[in-house]
Amino acid sequence: MPFLRYDVTTGDWVIFAPERARRPHEFRHAPAPAETPSERGPCPFCPGNEWMTGPEIFALRSAGGPDSSGWRIRVVPNKFPALRVEEENRHVEEGRLFRRLGGCGAHEVIIESPQHDTFLGHHPVEHIEQLLRVLQLRHNDLLRDLRIQQIVLFKNHGERAGTSLRHPHWQLIATPVVPRLLRLKHQIATDYFDQTGHCLYCDLAHEELEAGVRVVASNDRFVAFVPYAAHVPFETWILPRYHQSSFGQAQPSELYDLAQLLRLVLLKMYNALDNPHFNLTINTVPRGDENKPYFLWHIQIIPRLTTPAGFELGSGMSINLMLPEEAASYLRSIRG
Amino acid sequence: MPFLRYDVTTGDWVIFAPERARRPHEFRHAPAPAETPSERGPCPFCPGNEWMTGPEIFALRSAGGPDSSGWRIRVVPNKFPALRVEEENRHVEEGRLFRRLGGCGAHEVIIESPQHDTFLGHHPVEHIEQLLRVLQLRHNDLLRDLRIQQIVLFKNHGERAGTSLRHPHWQLIATPVVPRLLRLKHQIATDYFDQTGHCLYCDLAHEELEAGVRVVASNDRFVAFVPYAAHVPFETWILPRYHQSSFGQAQPSELYDLAQLLRLVLLKMYNALDNPHFNLTINTVPRGDENKPYFLWHIQIIPRLTTPAGFELGSGMSINLMLPEEAASYLRSIRG
Repeated sequence: MPFLRYDVTTGDWVIFAPERARRPHEFRHAPAPAETPSERGPCPFCPGNEWMTGPEIFALRSAGGPDSSGWRIRVVPNKFPALRVEEENRHVEEGRLFRRLGGCGAHEVIIESPQHDTFLGHHPVEHIEQLLRVLQLRHNDLLRDLRIQQIVLFKNHGERAGTSLRHPHWQLIATPVVPRLLRLKHQIATDYFDQTGHCLYCDLAHEELEAGVRVVASNDRFVAFVPYAAHVPFETWILPRYHQSSFGQAQPSELYDLAQLLRLVLLKMYNALDNPHFNLTINTVPRGDENKPYFLWHIQIIPRLTTPAGFELGSGMSINLMLPEEAASYLRSIRG
Repeated sequence: MPFLRYDVTTGDWVIFAPERARRPHEFRHAPAPAETPSERGPCPFCPGNEWMTGPEIFALRSAGGPDSSGWRIRVVPNKFPALRVEEENRHVEEGRLFRRLGGCGAHEVIIESPQHDTFLGHHPVEHIEQLLRVLQLRHNDLLRDLRIQQIVLFKNHGERAGTSLRHPHWQLIATPVVPRLLRLKHQIATDYFDQTGHCLYCDLAHEELEAGVRVVASNDRFVAFVPYAAHVPFETWILPRYHQSSFGQAQPSELYDLAQLLRLVLLKMYNALDNPHFNLTINTVPRGDENKPYFLWHIQIIPRLTTPAGFELGSGMSINLMLPEEAASYLRSIRG
């Protein structure tokens, strides 16, 4: 049964997931992060192997019933969940400085397509749009559980980004607390709104479009840029060009435009950097802030081209080896 | 010339170091983090190659003058500094949301010993004590520059921890701002002091010693434990057992006791986990807080056994696969 523990020195909750755990001695021979994910045995995400996953939560299908083949996008529970709806969100004091919380939440896997080895950017725009709609559907459905405070949607591409199964997929983790880093970002944006009457991220998108030098690509409704203070080389954000607090509020036609720009940016990165490993996350507001004016949901793409070391871990500061203007200029010059 | 940029969405300063930079296309073939550091050409940290580094800043010597052989521990400037004392700490507005700061600070390398491939824990206690004294000396010397706000001391062991040169060494980065994460930790500890009249870290050390289950080892003056809410498997902290705000204040006899316990913990990890890659940082107060009662300097050892993925990067939360009690029990059972 998963649970969380509170770090009194930072305000972070840490998830402990004993079902995912290894025995101490197994860490002796932990695979190096850059090793290829295991390909032993049949792939649990491939058509025909639906029996290998937990019961299907949702699927877009051309044929067949639940847990059969014929799906185009399929959502299943994570086999080793970090958090589970079956747990209670009960706080327990285990000592004056030690607080524990039940591992209440959800952990789902969104299988991108039946294809075992197709890069996300190589799908047609329409398929990527459908994928975004499925992500949104799961986001909105899980928020019906009042215990859930935040939805984190993400994708790991490549071993250096922490992938353990090659078949392309996204993950959704729903948490019973707002993660401290997100709380900080929301608080900073709220303070900015209180001071200026503007949404910080709308202003950022506006300033980046005006400056132009860090813009990678844009369409009518979205803009992609390497942020002014990017923490790592080729970090890229995709923001709506008009205010919208929650990813759950995006309309189908907006998700189509997002799919088009996301596909373009991913192809540019793929071609520019030789299929780099990366993490992609969707940043959105916590429960209850959907109609507040301070935050703009957005996508963050974080290529894993360098290794954070002791300075980064010890101070939280980053050393970036690539000027955002150069990264953006290079990505602009590469065809998508 | 290095400089910093302010991330208005998180409050982080990001260091940009163009002299360390690569051209965009060079990231195409960036080495995987788990690849062996380059061993091409002579090692700049080996005796006889003193000419390959910048002029020596400090050395403990048995023989010879500056930049000759005969040293036991040697401090040199980083060849590609993240920050430099020659830069001004001048703030420049580059747009309403874009702020830049001169790359004022320092970046030094502390070469552990003349030996090219000796693990830190395999040195005698006396050598480790001398190393700690050299680190402290550089810490205290650099704080004489009033522009410097924080000293970050760290060591990267192994490729997965970001090492690029095999010859064992530490690094010191002196920053012109207090990193946001450290400011947060100091603020939380200050609030705790204001509420309770106690130092948070002294109370933590006390509670961990009382609980016992997460203690790895201890001596009269220091205690090593896996913290209750460890963020990664086998994360280990070493704290003084009495209040001391700054690493700069530790007395020689205290550094001897620290060397003894640090050596023991490193050997236990080496034997338990088959020479794991790790980062080690010394956490201490920023300029001016040396005589405040809220913080206890300490060492943090972060083994790099797992890869943070999209959830960790997107939310700031960690998923830990190893219970701290099990990790500590395993380390206790292993000889040092």
